[in-house]
Amino acid sequence: MKFLEDRIRRDGQVRPGNILKVDSFLNHQIDVDLLDQIGKAFYDEYKDAGITRILTIEASGIAIGCAAARYFHVPVVFAKKAKSRNIDGDVYTSTVHSFTYGKDYQITLSKKYLGPDDTVLLVDDFLAVGKAMRGLLDVCGQAGAKVAGIGICIEKGFQEGGKILRSEGYKVTSLAIVDHMTDDGQITFREE
Amino acid sequence: MKFLEDRIRRDGQVRPGNILKVDSFLNHQIDVDLLDQIGKAFYDEYKDAGITRILTIEASGIAIGCAAARYFHVPVVFAKKAKSRNIDGDVYTSTVHSFTYGKDYQITLSKKYLGPDDTVLLVDDFLAVGKAMRGLLDVCGQAGAKVAGIGICIEKGFQEGGKILRSEGYKVTSLAIVDHMTDDGQITFREE
Repeated sequence: MKFLEDRIRRDGQVRPGNILKVDSFLNHQIDVDLLDQIGKAFYDEYKDAGITRILTIEASGIAIGCAAARYFHVPVVFAKKAKSRNIDGDVYTSTVHSFTYGKDYQITLSKKYLGPDDTVLLVDDFLAVGKAMRGLLDVCGQAGAKVAGIGICIEKGFQEGGKILRSEGYKVTSLAIVDHMTDDGQITFREE
Repeated sequence: MKFLEDRIRRDGQVRPGNILKVDSFLNHQIDVDLLDQIGKAFYDEYKDAGITRILTIEASGIAIGCAAARYFHVPVVFAKKAKSRNIDGDVYTSTVHSFTYGKDYQITLSKKYLGPDDTVLLVDDFLAVGKAMRGLLDVCGQAGAKVAGIGICIEKGFQEGGKILRSEGYKVTSLAIVDHMTDDGQITFREE
């Protein structure tokens, strides 16, 4: 989507190691008008897919999930990354490796909030190697929920996550796909 | 606020140890219509306060911060709980003790997103002992930002956080104040 590419060009910052910083508008400070556009873009793509729940993962995914859920008029559920004593009862769990934090962590989702009658849109801010998304898909598999698609704000097209997911038959909707970044800040987006 | 008290009475669950679970609508699964009402309630209270930024803390605060920021048409900034290699440059930090997770953690906020020209509304889902809010206030102090007030969804009125903050002169707006809970699920709210 042009609106997100434009914003990334204007306010994104490239750091060595293929890091794209969007913390001025997406995942530390959040521009809520942009967030609303993101939610609407996912709605436009999946409005006829019978979505019953939006599923995402804390922390950055929460804002995006809420923005989408407002358009779909369905609940958003976010998988938790830490074991909280405030989640009890039966849970789905999956182990995820984070490259950002350099360690494995477990995600947890209460079985009350996802089941075989659900048709789910998964959303997140970034898709790179796809480890977090793999954890969410694992949880959907355990729940028997149908995955209508995966909505991503920024896909790092030079990493394999999106390619593998598409090859497995998942519909992946990325609002901006970065195919190349240079250390001096040039960003090349995939043509739609 | 009656709307949140009603929802807590209907869907909240009391657990031994003064735990109030609201994970079916506020902090695991989120009802986005309720979230919108929460955002509007904070706006109604602070719309003339000159708010320039909403400040909150990951993870549960993010949804609430976004809901409020939409009404104020200002950015929301959330303090991060884990050290990410995606935050660089100068940061404010503060140490917070979590009773939910039983440990200390450090919160981090980029100096780019809070400064002496800001007038801030702080929001969070719960206020109990007030440790997380103390960390955010510490960050505001470091930034020289003006704190217009503190917007809380659910205050545990039988713990001292709200009382101490009010005694220090902070305006604390809690949409529901629980004065008493019994293990068999009875909840007594403070009269407005």
